Amino acid sequence: MASESGKLWGGRFVGAVDPIMEKFNASIAYDRHLWEVDVQGSKAYSRGLEKAGLLTKAEMDQILHGLDKVAEEWAQGTFKLSPNDEDIHTANERRLKELIGETAGKLHTGRSRNDQVVTDLRLWMRQTCSTLSGLLWELIRTMVDRAEAERDVLFPGYTHLQRAQPIRWSHWILSHAVALTRDSERLLEVRKRINVLPLGSGAIAGNPLGVDRELLRAELNFGAITLNSMDATSERDFVAEFLFWASLCMTHLSRMAEDLILYCTKEFSFVQLSDAYSTGSSLMPQKKNPDSLELIRSKAGRVFGRCAGLLMTLKGLPSTYNKDLQEDKEAVFEVSDTMSAVLQVATGVISTLQIHRENMGQALSPDMLATDLAYYLVRKGMPFRQAHEASGKAVFMAETKGVALNQLSLQELQTISPLFSGDVSCVWDYGHSVEQYGALGGTARSSVDWQICQVRALLQAQQA
Amino acid sequence: MASESGKLWGGRFVGAVDPIMEKFNASIAYDRHLWEVDVQGSKAYSRGLEKAGLLTKAEMDQILHGLDKVAEEWAQGTFKLSPNDEDIHTANERRLKELIGETAGKLHTGRSRNDQVVTDLRLWMRQTCSTLSGLLWELIRTMVDRAEAERDVLFPGYTHLQRAQPIRWSHWILSHAVALTRDSERLLEVRKRINVLPLGSGAIAGNPLGVDRELLRAELNFGAITLNSMDATSERDFVAEFLFWASLCMTHLSRMAEDLILYCTKEFSFVQLSDAYSTGSSLMPQKKNPDSLELIRSKAGRVFGRCAGLLMTLKGLPSTYNKDLQEDKEAVFEVSDTMSAVLQVATGVISTLQIHRENMGQALSPDMLATDLAYYLVRKGMPFRQAHEASGKAVFMAETKGVALNQLSLQELQTISPLFSGDVSCVWDYGHSVEQYGALGGTARSSVDWQICQVRALLQAQQA
Amino acid sequence: MASESGKLWGGRFVGAVDPIMEKFNASIAYDRHLWEVDVQGSKAYSRGLEKAGLLTKAEMDQILHGLDKVAEEWAQGTFKLSPNDEDIHTANERRLKELIGETAGKLHTGRSRNDQVVTDLRLWMRQTCSTLSGLLWELIRTMVDRAEAERDVLFPGYTHLQRAQPIRWSHWILSHAVALTRDSERLLEVRKRINVLPLGSGAIAGNPLGVDRELLRAELNFGAITLNSMDATSERDFVAEFLFWASLCMTHLSRMAEDLILYCTKEFSFVQLSDAYSTGSSLMPQKKNPDSLELIRSKAGRVFGRCAGLLMTLKGLPSTYNKDLQEDKEAVFEVSDTMSAVLQVATGVISTLQIHRENMGQALSPDMLATDLAYYLVRKGMPFRQAHEASGKAVFMAETKGVALNQLSLQELQTISPLFSGDVSCVWDYGHSVEQYGALGGTARSSVDWQICQVRALLQAQQA
Amino acid sequence: MASESGKLWGGRFVGAVDPIMEKFNASIAYDRHLWEVDVQGSKAYSRGLEKAGLLTKAEMDQILHGLDKVAEEWAQGTFKLSPNDEDIHTANERRLKELIGETAGKLHTGRSRNDQVVTDLRLWMRQTCSTLSGLLWELIRTMVDRAEAERDVLFPGYTHLQRAQPIRWSHWILSHAVALTRDSERLLEVRKRINVLPLGSGAIAGNPLGVDRELLRAELNFGAITLNSMDATSERDFVAEFLFWASLCMTHLSRMAEDLILYCTKEFSFVQLSDAYSTGSSLMPQKKNPDSLELIRSKAGRVFGRCAGLLMTLKGLPSTYNKDLQEDKEAVFEVSDTMSAVLQVATGVISTLQIHRENMGQALSPDMLATDLAYYLVRKGMPFRQAHEASGKAVFMAETKGVALNQLSLQELQTISPLFSGDVSCVWDYGHSVEQYGALGGTARSSVDWQICQVRALLQAQQA
Repeated sequence: MASESGKLWGGRFVGAVDPIMEKFNASIAYDRHLWEVDVQGSKAYSRGLEKAGLLTKAEMDQILHGLDKVAEEWAQGTFKLSPNDEDIHTANERRLKELIGETAGKLHTGRSRNDQVVTDLRLWMRQTCSTLSGLLWELIRTMVDRAEAERDVLFPGYTHLQRAQPIRWSHWILSHAVALTRDSERLLEVRKRINVLPLGSGAIAGNPLGVDRELLRAELNFGAITLNSMDATSERDFVAEFLFWASLCMTHLSRMAEDLILYCTKEFSFVQLSDAYSTGSSLMPQKKNPDSLELIRSKAGRVFGRCAGLLMTLKGLPSTYNKDLQEDKEAVFEVSDTMSAVLQVATGVISTLQIHRENMGQALSPDMLATDLAYYLVRKGMPFRQAHEASGKAVFMAETKGVALNQLSLQELQTISPLFSGDVSCVWDYGHSVEQYGALGGTARSSVDWQICQVRALLQAQQA
Repeated sequence: MASESGKLWGGRFVGAVDPIMEKFNASIAYDRHLWEVDVQGSKAYSRGLEKAGLLTKAEMDQILHGLDKVAEEWAQGTFKLSPNDEDIHTANERRLKELIGETAGKLHTGRSRNDQVVTDLRLWMRQTCSTLSGLLWELIRTMVDRAEAERDVLFPGYTHLQRAQPIRWSHWILSHAVALTRDSERLLEVRKRINVLPLGSGAIAGNPLGVDRELLRAELNFGAITLNSMDATSERDFVAEFLFWASLCMTHLSRMAEDLILYCTKEFSFVQLSDAYSTGSSLMPQKKNPDSLELIRSKAGRVFGRCAGLLMTLKGLPSTYNKDLQEDKEAVFEVSDTMSAVLQVATGVISTLQIHRENMGQALSPDMLATDLAYYLVRKGMPFRQAHEASGKAVFMAETKGVALNQLSLQELQTISPLFSGDVSCVWDYGHSVEQYGALGGTARSSVDWQICQVRALLQAQQA
Repeated sequence: MASESGKLWGGRFVGAVDPIMEKFNASIAYDRHLWEVDVQGSKAYSRGLEKAGLLTKAEMDQILHGLDKVAEEWAQGTFKLSPNDEDIHTANERRLKELIGETAGKLHTGRSRNDQVVTDLRLWMRQTCSTLSGLLWELIRTMVDRAEAERDVLFPGYTHLQRAQPIRWSHWILSHAVALTRDSERLLEVRKRINVLPLGSGAIAGNPLGVDRELLRAELNFGAITLNSMDATSERDFVAEFLFWASLCMTHLSRMAEDLILYCTKEFSFVQLSDAYSTGSSLMPQKKNPDSLELIRSKAGRVFGRCAGLLMTLKGLPSTYNKDLQEDKEAVFEVSDTMSAVLQVATGVISTLQIHRENMGQALSPDMLATDLAYYLVRKGMPFRQAHEASGKAVFMAETKGVALNQLSLQELQTISPLFSGDVSCVWDYGHSVEQYGALGGTARSSVDWQICQVRALLQAQQA
Repeated sequence: MASESGKLWGGRFVGAVDPIMEKFNASIAYDRHLWEVDVQGSKAYSRGLEKAGLLTKAEMDQILHGLDKVAEEWAQGTFKLSPNDEDIHTANERRLKELIGETAGKLHTGRSRNDQVVTDLRLWMRQTCSTLSGLLWELIRTMVDRAEAERDVLFPGYTHLQRAQPIRWSHWILSHAVALTRDSERLLEVRKRINVLPLGSGAIAGNPLGVDRELLRAELNFGAITLNSMDATSERDFVAEFLFWASLCMTHLSRMAEDLILYCTKEFSFVQLSDAYSTGSSLMPQKKNPDSLELIRSKAGRVFGRCAGLLMTLKGLPSTYNKDLQEDKEAVFEVSDTMSAVLQVATGVISTLQIHRENMGQALSPDMLATDLAYYLVRKGMPFRQAHEASGKAVFMAETKGVALNQLSLQELQTISPLFSGDVSCVWDYGHSVEQYGALGGTARSSVDWQICQVRALLQAQQA
């Protein structure tokens, strides 16, 4: 009985141990990342115990002081794990006991690892969300600044990857920036739901010792407290939400990366990656590969995989804490690291990317104005459907004759519709084309400026 | 050239047709569900065209009137699809033209199916979110009402599916209700992001004809307008968010279903499903199977599968509209139907479930009070760690002697700790036990009442 | 008690019914697809009952005849569902009873819907696998034929989407065909595991009436019988495997589609889709969009979603049949339909695709021979690492001077390495370049021919 | 230009470096696990180069000797990474050069990291598959041995988690063992497809220097060579298959774990986990939690997440190598480690589990024989449907009277059917019941023995 007395449930177990199971069960290899928040949570909890009369002021001070020491050891890299430290909570409390003696044994009064670990995780993720928000804002800001600076560059807009209509390069940048503002908004909502205190829920039934959860909340600066102790210790919505937030954000970044990978090809040649974000080939000396963008694109899979994995783990679990929930932390840590790297690399890519304005301009072709040709007829009174068909006939005629659309003569156009007259020549100006799209959200300069203002205002509001 | 003149791009294509491709490409088999919102969107758009001077008042009235007719045919089931109606937009416009003639050809001016379909889908989903919110509220309300009514029933709380501590049955109900309130909150946030108008974005570059998007927004009662036309026509965040919302909500329901399936077993025998939510066996006459709960549990997989599928489809797409996005609608329709059924069935299950109070009571056993025994010692001044170990020794002693924990004599207990005295007998009262857990969120009656109030207040706030 | 007497478990249930639950529970809306195999399985089973002495020869004949009638009604579209037909098994047996009377009640002896449905599904999927194998072979054959015909077309091979080395167009085709041969091989393995008979397993414990499962196996032409009745009725490995098979196959097709979508762009202009596999734009008259390819790409998500959904549904289920398993069929039907369409459309796309040889040739550029330049030095004795660096210097020199790599003079090259001599000019021939890659699997003509032979041999072996 | 000369593409790049990008790009942190197979592959390749005349015998010997040294350093933990070692290939070649000088620069001739890394990974996974096969066989063997030893223990079989029919405990064990034999079969198939040599494919176009790939294959003991160099360097089917294999295997283990978690509850009390595979509670002294089983169950999510992540990463990639593929290795390593631990822990759990025969026997109840009661009538000539209904009436009668099913008097039974006579008493014997299920795959002793033989024969065949 005494043989395992270092373990929390030391009083009872009598059996032997399987070292593979020990390792399988232990979480210290990764939950050590929580050392700081674990200490933080324990400090708050000891204050709660003191107020509830379960610790004297002196005992509390002893514990607080001891915990500070524990934190110091972690911070300085001198904390030594013992083989029995299966998780960060056990490790910290074991060390506290070594430092301050039996009083340490009072710290866990009315607390369970169930409410402790989820408090730790929420504290950690709250900080992570703030960090990621900052990185995301920086990325968006970089994009918006760039969009403002390069407002007058035109290039082809594509749908179905076919040249569609001339647009401003800034309009393209903003299309991705706007998507990211939704990620930013969502991250604040996720953070709001992370920022709820579960401490004081015990293992399942709650806290029986009159601990004041409002005091704990205030100590740890949470926005609210959890409502139900069973739910509090076993729900991982905030983890799933965070992983999904990351998955959706990565989906956006994978699409932006895909665009840029295309624009980097010899065939498109619209942009050129800085050397810092490219790599070469071990075989082909002439290659310059957009590895940064490919890695960003690939991480969409990894991050989503973590989200999928957690949801499957949660599916069909009986309520309250089950050991299955231990899967939450590695997912969170990995995804946080990935997002941090991805956002910074993306910012680097965007801020150092060179654009080839000339190539962009040369890629515009008169057939991309076929829609505008239809609008020309619409403005002359033709119903759009007929105008669309007429413009289609002009495209077909030009193709058949092997000339560009704008090289059809007025007479030729008039065989399609008598509404064509000399002023049709205005249609063939790309600058004129984009300026038509002045409705809010369009690619006209005024609308692009409006978008820039809107996104900046959003950022400012979110940072408030 | 004339051969396919019924098609939108009739002016140009010359090739033959593969019927399998036709069917593969067509979406009318499912997007017909959008008939009503498609008409609604077109009516608003024709008002926008009129204001922009592209339709006369008379033309607009003609179109509005025609669209009403189209809607009427759908509503009465008399709308006849033609073989060339590849999607709902084509079908409705084709029919409009049959009804009102060439003026119909003006409706699509400056509009693309890209902005049209996403407007339709947002309108449809906005309504669906409201419906699902209502069903979710009803489920939560049913749970809270039941929790209030059965507040005095105690039964075992489990962690790791091992008997842990006595709790109130209502505490269990509320643990699931509280989880669902987060789904409800999230659904409102999703709805907010759905409720943004993309119409007026054209295919990619925006609207060139001075359509007033604010007017369209007001007509269709959207909360805001999209900021960037490229993003507006190709982002499906709102779909992904909805599918994830459903996935997470189903995870909650799968866990509640799992609990109830267990509680329905002969071995637990805590609850009995109403016959309306059970089925029998084609082979075994004595069987009564909790099919409703198993189906609820299973749908967590299906719904998540749709979420996973959409995210994979979105991954790495070039920006703007690609036909891949056509995958969005079937996912939305299927998941909406599933959620509607699941929420209603869950409400039916909860409202008709019988509980076996006696079995619940008999399942409580003294060893579940071991934690309280430790707290007894804590209250006498023993540090919790020692108290936990002492209580563990008592459990071990009782097991060794083959008696219940509460049958250990005072003398026996005192061999473990001299702090035990006569008042230890109070520990063995289950009612007394739960009442200790009076901190907010715990299982004491006052806290359960507080939870009921909190959830009701949340519901009220959300419905406002 | 009598009120629900039409239901299988009619003897016992007394409660009322929730119509939403009824619909939620019923599978007839989709499992009716199994009508034919259900009849087939029942015919075999009645033969088994006769042999076991549980049916007389006359009763068996009556049942066989009745079942043929049932099948005839389905085939002719005259089978009428009754409101109580919750699934295909119930419907068919109900109808059989109407046709032949009480003897019908003997058919289900010793059988459960648990072993019946999984037998049906295996029969159905066995056929589907054969059909899909045939479609897959046709696609591969088309690709190989095309590869053979266009063996002499060269174009750029890309890695990281950057021009890498000249390759044969056929080498590209074969790279995708070879991937599909693995799908074909896997499908045969999946089929082998589908082709195992579960009938005779009852609900859980097996068959107690001496039914000869070997006879059933032979009747239904299965390859083997299941080993354990509990596993037989509740494992859905064969479904999961099939869904994963489809997911991986779709991943291949999504990659081929992605390549072709790129090659269809104006910028690459290597290929042109047949009109039958393209569509136009409702707004932009000049557009020709590769919708077929985009749809193929998108289905990778949908199909995977079904796979993910099923696995999540299976996770953590208690063993034996649980109603959760009802989720299997819709996934199978949808994925089968999708695969059938995708494979046929892909075959159509490949067989009608036009290639632009001239554009392909013009896209080759001297810098793609930088690796060959390094090999030139290697053949002169320089270690590869130095040769790679030397070639890199040549690339840099050419870029700096603004000339093509093959325009560097011999003197210029010799400033990099004295090993360069007059014969370096051979390096600049693309035809010569590809012919170097004669090791098996390379892009030399001999190797491409070898690949064609290998793939054809594989196909022949698989069809045997 | 010189500043980055240590990098493989040293000749060309001129830009600065982003340390976050460097770390994001580097794979050495995890691909160092490949050190041994990387050396192995390089040794074989140097033999190929020698045979092709690109290395002299002396150079080859020098390289082989140097590579052995490199391996020795890794094995002894003395290999020192340099900051520029971005991956294992670079690291090993850099070190080789330090050890043997410029000759090291010849090793990479005609090879690319694209074919090198995938050769390494296949070698590594081939070994892993063998290891995992062994662990899986050990688990199955343990289960079969246990099934044989405990053949005479009866307990309730459940469907829908409701008591269904009496079965042998061994029948339950075998139901899971049989599922695992399919995993074992599949793993061999996956291994077969892993065991194919890609080396000699270069980056994309193949090998231009006459390297004999058959020689490489023989050197490395692969079963076959890849057919197409583009496919060979970029397909990751074997990774996806492996991850899916693991996902499906985990689904099986999650279901077995779920059963055992239930059987461990106080309510079922059929089994007791060894202390080595349980843990206690930090709060509740009486708790003994089945953590091992919960962790096994949870890993189904994690492993599937990796499979999902990889498939999403692969979706829609252009063909040939893209940096996205770098995501493959961490998934493989993590899943291999997880499977290894899970299989060993599961074996430990099964081999040390205690069963409570008495509880198992007491859980059998007469209503579980209702199906047998129906069969009794069937044997007397009543059609099964009527017999099922009659038995259902008996169940209802017993419930109504509040007695056990076997306590209905003969007279009472005869009010339901006159076919009941004195011999009905035989029905109420559980041992007699299970012995009826003698058809292959059933729960009769003879059939259980047959199953044991079958599984053992399978294992033997697979190990051959």
